[in-house]
Amino acid sequence: MVTEAEQADGSAEDWADVSPEAARRLVRAAVEAFAERGYHATTTRDIAGRAGMSPAALYIHYKTKEELLFRISGIGHEKALRIMEEAAGADGGPAERLAAAVRTFACWHARHHTTARVIQYELQALSEEHYAHVAGLRRRTDRSLRGILQDGADAGEFTVGDVPGTTLAVLSLCVDVARWFSAEGARTPEEVGELYAGLVLRMVGARP
Amino acid sequence: MVTEAEQADGSAEDWADVSPEAARRLVRAAVEAFAERGYHATTTRDIAGRAGMSPAALYIHYKTKEELLFRISGIGHEKALRIMEEAAGADGGPAERLAAAVRTFACWHARHHTTARVIQYELQALSEEHYAHVAGLRRRTDRSLRGILQDGADAGEFTVGDVPGTTLAVLSLCVDVARWFSAEGARTPEEVGELYAGLVLRMVGARP
Repeated sequence: MVTEAEQADGSAEDWADVSPEAARRLVRAAVEAFAERGYHATTTRDIAGRAGMSPAALYIHYKTKEELLFRISGIGHEKALRIMEEAAGADGGPAERLAAAVRTFACWHARHHTTARVIQYELQALSEEHYAHVAGLRRRTDRSLRGILQDGADAGEFTVGDVPGTTLAVLSLCVDVARWFSAEGARTPEEVGELYAGLVLRMVGARP
Repeated sequence: MVTEAEQADGSAEDWADVSPEAARRLVRAAVEAFAERGYHATTTRDIAGRAGMSPAALYIHYKTKEELLFRISGIGHEKALRIMEEAAGADGGPAERLAAAVRTFACWHARHHTTARVIQYELQALSEEHYAHVAGLRRRTDRSLRGILQDGADAGEFTVGDVPGTTLAVLSLCVDVARWFSAEGARTPEEVGELYAGLVLRMVGARP
């Protein structure tokens, strides 16, 4: 069940796939704890406590703290990849697809800034095997955006001197929204997405 | 004394002003520890150990772990501000000054990515009073860059619809270099600075 509070802050959709409900509660508690104190300063006891559960009850769902981080990181990265692949595969010209990709990717990082911070800043805490999985998702996200830029360059609609470098800059710009975005700030997630779509179109020299 | 290793990785200049040498060693050990494990998971004992000192010797220089973080954050933010103010106050037109600001600011965040990560990601661990001081430095950095964009817009050399929003995006782009930059990566700090200066000039619609 998705609570009203979850719906209000938009965070429910991140974890809707996690079931049973106790496992989802643990994921949400872990995200909050990791964001506040960092992965290494958080114990499974802290997470269970936040979720209103006993440490023993946590172990039914997750064998280790790292397994919880991997669950969070995996879901977050898959969601980010899906947004990018949807935009890349949509109808429309390169400029339209690029604008859609940047708009939704930046907006997602604003709306889910707590989750996004955890998945970006705690990568090195993943096990080697789990890191390899997540790195694969990150490479696919990069490739998907790079494809849009290359399409635009090939069609003569964008002027991009360095396609991999510009791809990196555009992803970085969107990801970093998670660092500075505040729900109390001057802009809504949608407004950030709109601003960034415009800035990126100019960055790639899209013909108006 | 600055060691060869410090010179080689470019990290010495960050802390050259910290003296005596034992205090500088502690600052460097703290940056490494905070970057690896996070502020909250690091103890003063860990830091002293990394610096090859006893916890008692640490307390001669820093009364608390937070005081060490504030020293690091203060020096890092002052350095970033100085880079921006030098570019803003230099001779030359807005495009030249903007390119110089982005080039050096991005390059600094690449070269000093470990320090930059700590000062960006551990802001919430500062005391209220120390945070207020650092926030003042951040506002001045923002104002300095915004001044260049406004000069360019006023002179008709840039086309910027939203000056505060574009300022935020440009700062964010440069700061996030610290997150993804790796000394083993394909680009040097100088190459990142050069790439970004070009992308940002286009972002503000600078006339070629």
